[in-house]
Amino acid sequence: MEKVKLANGLEFSRIIHGQMRILDWKMNSQELLAFIEQIMELGIDTFDNADIYGNYTCEGLVGDALALKPELRKQMTIVTKCGINILSNKFPQKKIQYYDYRAEYIIQEAENSLRNLRTDYLDVLLLHRPSDILNPHEVAEAFGKLRREGKVRYFGVSNFLSHDVSALQAYLDEKLVTNQIEISPYRIIHFENGNMNYCVEKNLKPMAYCPIADGRLAKPTDEKSERIVKVLHEIAEELGVPETDSVIYAWLLKHPSVIMPINGSGKIERIRRSVEAMKLDLTVEQWSRIFVASRGVALP
Amino acid sequence: MEKVKLANGLEFSRIIHGQMRILDWKMNSQELLAFIEQIMELGIDTFDNADIYGNYTCEGLVGDALALKPELRKQMTIVTKCGINILSNKFPQKKIQYYDYRAEYIIQEAENSLRNLRTDYLDVLLLHRPSDILNPHEVAEAFGKLRREGKVRYFGVSNFLSHDVSALQAYLDEKLVTNQIEISPYRIIHFENGNMNYCVEKNLKPMAYCPIADGRLAKPTDEKSERIVKVLHEIAEELGVPETDSVIYAWLLKHPSVIMPINGSGKIERIRRSVEAMKLDLTVEQWSRIFVASRGVALP
Amino acid sequence: MEKVKLANGLEFSRIIHGQMRILDWKMNSQELLAFIEQIMELGIDTFDNADIYGNYTCEGLVGDALALKPELRKQMTIVTKCGINILSNKFPQKKIQYYDYRAEYIIQEAENSLRNLRTDYLDVLLLHRPSDILNPHEVAEAFGKLRREGKVRYFGVSNFLSHDVSALQAYLDEKLVTNQIEISPYRIIHFENGNMNYCVEKNLKPMAYCPIADGRLAKPTDEKSERIVKVLHEIAEELGVPETDSVIYAWLLKHPSVIMPINGSGKIERIRRSVEAMKLDLTVEQWSRIFVASRGVALP
Repeated sequence: MEKVKLANGLEFSRIIHGQMRILDWKMNSQELLAFIEQIMELGIDTFDNADIYGNYTCEGLVGDALALKPELRKQMTIVTKCGINILSNKFPQKKIQYYDYRAEYIIQEAENSLRNLRTDYLDVLLLHRPSDILNPHEVAEAFGKLRREGKVRYFGVSNFLSHDVSALQAYLDEKLVTNQIEISPYRIIHFENGNMNYCVEKNLKPMAYCPIADGRLAKPTDEKSERIVKVLHEIAEELGVPETDSVIYAWLLKHPSVIMPINGSGKIERIRRSVEAMKLDLTVEQWSRIFVASRGVALP
Repeated sequence: MEKVKLANGLEFSRIIHGQMRILDWKMNSQELLAFIEQIMELGIDTFDNADIYGNYTCEGLVGDALALKPELRKQMTIVTKCGINILSNKFPQKKIQYYDYRAEYIIQEAENSLRNLRTDYLDVLLLHRPSDILNPHEVAEAFGKLRREGKVRYFGVSNFLSHDVSALQAYLDEKLVTNQIEISPYRIIHFENGNMNYCVEKNLKPMAYCPIADGRLAKPTDEKSERIVKVLHEIAEELGVPETDSVIYAWLLKHPSVIMPINGSGKIERIRRSVEAMKLDLTVEQWSRIFVASRGVALP
Repeated sequence: MEKVKLANGLEFSRIIHGQMRILDWKMNSQELLAFIEQIMELGIDTFDNADIYGNYTCEGLVGDALALKPELRKQMTIVTKCGINILSNKFPQKKIQYYDYRAEYIIQEAENSLRNLRTDYLDVLLLHRPSDILNPHEVAEAFGKLRREGKVRYFGVSNFLSHDVSALQAYLDEKLVTNQIEISPYRIIHFENGNMNYCVEKNLKPMAYCPIADGRLAKPTDEKSERIVKVLHEIAEELGVPETDSVIYAWLLKHPSVIMPINGSGKIERIRRSVEAMKLDLTVEQWSRIFVASRGVALP
C-alpha cells in the first residue's frame, strides 16, 4: 500500500477506511475488530471518524473493538473530527445545528474522542466544517494545548474552502495536514470553486469522502449520475475491470493533488476493489471523459 | 469605550458615528455641535463621512459645527471617502455615475474635504468603491503626496472585495487600515464571498455600515427580515434587553475580525444602545441562530 | 510602436497580430508574406498562433510564408499554444475534446510547432486552457526541458483564472510571462471574477483576444451589443475618430494591467486602426460609460 507523507512523522495509507456508518452494520465488538483487522491486512492503516457519527456513537463502537486488542492502536492512524453540534435526542435543548470552535469545546470534544476510542492520543483532529464565527485565536489556543499535552499529534480541516483554510492557517504555528472534502465524479464543485487548485498550490493533500456519491454512482438516481455511470462502464470495459467503482477510485487517485479516498464500506470486497484500483492508470482522455460527463457540457 | 488599534498611531472607538444623513436631521450648527458632544461623551470619537454625502453637503455641515469649537478636532478621529462621482444637480454635465481614482482627483477631493470639514488633516481617507479602471500607480502617488503634505494620516478602502484590496495593497508602501463594508444580520454577502475571511487573515479590521440594514431590521419589509427579526426578539428576551438593535450590535461585535459598527442615527438614545451592546456577549449558538435566519437554510 | 517588457529579454509590441483565421483568407505564401511584412511595417512584431488553429494548419501556412524570407524570423516574436485536443477529422478516434498537459504531449506539440513554423525556437509557448487534471510537475518538467534545449524561450498561459495561474506558478522556477484571455467591452467576465485584479497585483500582463467580440461589436447581435455600440459611437464622435474599433482598442489600452490586444484581422486597414488607437486617450468617464453599457446596470 502506498503511503502518503502529510508531515514529518505523519503518513496516511493512500486508501482510508471511513467509520461513519459502523452503527448500521450491526457488528458486535468482536466482529468489528475482525473487520478492522481484515482492512489492515489490505494495507489500510488510516481510519476516519467524527465525534458525531452515528449520533455520537460510532467512535465508542470502534473503541470497544480496539479494547479487545489494544496493541492494534500503534499500527493505526486515527483521524477524527469535532465542531458540529447536531440536533440530537441526546441534546434536546438545542434549537439549531451549529458549529462550535471555542477552545473549550474543541478540547472537550477531543477528550471525548480519546475516551470513546479508548486511546490516549489522536493522530489527527479535523475541524468538521468551516464556520463564520470561528475565532482563529481560540482554535490556535486549543490546538496548542492539545498538542502540548500529547492528546492530538496533528490538525487539519474538513469541508473548508480555500479562503477558510488560508484565514485559519495564518494563525497557526504548524501547517494544517489535510482538508477532507467531498470529491467524486458526481461531485466536482471543488474543481469549479478553485479548492482543488488551492490544494495543489499549497501541497495540502485532500481526503475525499463520498467517492461513490452516496451510492448515486452505484445506482444512478438522476440524469447526471446516468451520464457518468455510462462513461464509467465504457472505461471499465476499456481497462478490463469488472466493476465501475474501481474506475471511480482510479479517477480520484489520478489527480495531482494526491487525493486520499475514504472508503466507508462495510464489505471487505468493496474495500479490496478500492485498493486494487491503485494498479489502474487512467489516461488523461479517460479522466476527462468522466469529468465531462459530470459537467454535462463539452470542454471549451 | 474600547479602542481598536488600526495602525501605529491610529485608534478608532469601537463604535463609530456615521454622518451620512446629517442633512436630513435639519439641525443648525449649534445643535449639531451639541449632538456631536453628546456622542463623544458616550466614548465615541471616530466619525465617518464622505465627500458625496448629502449631495456633497454633509462634510460642510460638520465643518460648520466644528468651527464653533475648534478644540474638539484634536479629540476626534475623522474618516472620509472619495472617488464616487454621483449624478448631481451640481454637475449637470455628467452622463453616468462613475468612480475616479486619478491622483489628481483623489487629491482634489481630499483637499475639498479638508476645506469642508474646516480641518488641516484627515485621519483616514477611504476609496469609496472598487473600480475596474483604478490605476494603483495613481493611487499610490496620491496617497504618498497627501501623506507627505500632512493632509491625510492613513488610508483605507470601502466596499472592496478581497482581490480588490490585494491588488491595490501590492502597490502601496503602507498597509490599508480598514475596509468599510456593509455587514448586518440581513446582509451576509461578505461572509459568503470570502471577504470576512480575508479580513481575519490579513488583520484588516472592517468598519460595518448599515448595521440595521437601512431599517429593514427595525421594520421588516420581506420574509427574510421577518425571519431575522423573529430570532432577534427571541435572543433579546434571552439576554434580557428591551431592544433588538442591541442584539444586532452584539452580533457584529462578536465576530473575530473586530468589526467596528457605524451607527448613523440622529437619536442619542439609539447611539447609546449600540454602545451598551458592548456589554452583551452572545453565545456561539445565538450568533449562529441569527446567521441561519439570514441564510434561510440550516447549516449543513 | 510601444514595446511591453514581459521579462528580461522579452518584449512584445503593444498590438499583437493573431494568426487564427489565416486559413480563411486564402492567401498563398507570397501573399501571406507580403501581408506579414505590411503588418511589421506598422511596428507590430509579435504574432500569436496555436497548434490547433485552422484544424492544425495555420502554423504551417505561416511557416511556408516565413520560409520565403527566413531573415524575417529574427525580427519577430512568435507566440504559440498547446494543450487542446480538438475533435478533428485528422484524429477520428477521439471521443471528446480534452486538454493534455503531460510533459510528453507538451514537448511533442512544441516540436510540431517548430516544424510547422519553420523555426528553431518559439519565443513564448502558452498552455491553451486550464485543465482540472493538469499535473504541475509534468508541466514544470516539459518547460524545463524545452527551455534547456533552446526550443522555447518563455512560457505563459491562456484562459487561466487566478487560482489556475497561482497553482501552476508555485511549481515553476520562472514567472509565467502572460495570460491570454478574452477581453472586450462585450466580454467583461475577467473584471468580474477577479482575474484583472490578479493581473494587476502580480504584474502579469494579459494578451486580449477577441477584442471586437467575434464581430458582435462591429455588427450588434443582441441587446447588450447594441447598448455598447451606441456608446462606442458617441465616444467615437467625442474623440473625432471615424470608426468604433479605434475606441474599443483605446478602451483596452487604457487599463492599468497593460492589456496587449490581439488583432486577428486580415485587412491591413483594420490593423492600422488598432495601432492608431494608441494615440487616443479615453477619459475615466468615457471608459466607465463603455463598461456600464456592458454591465447593463449603473455602478452602485
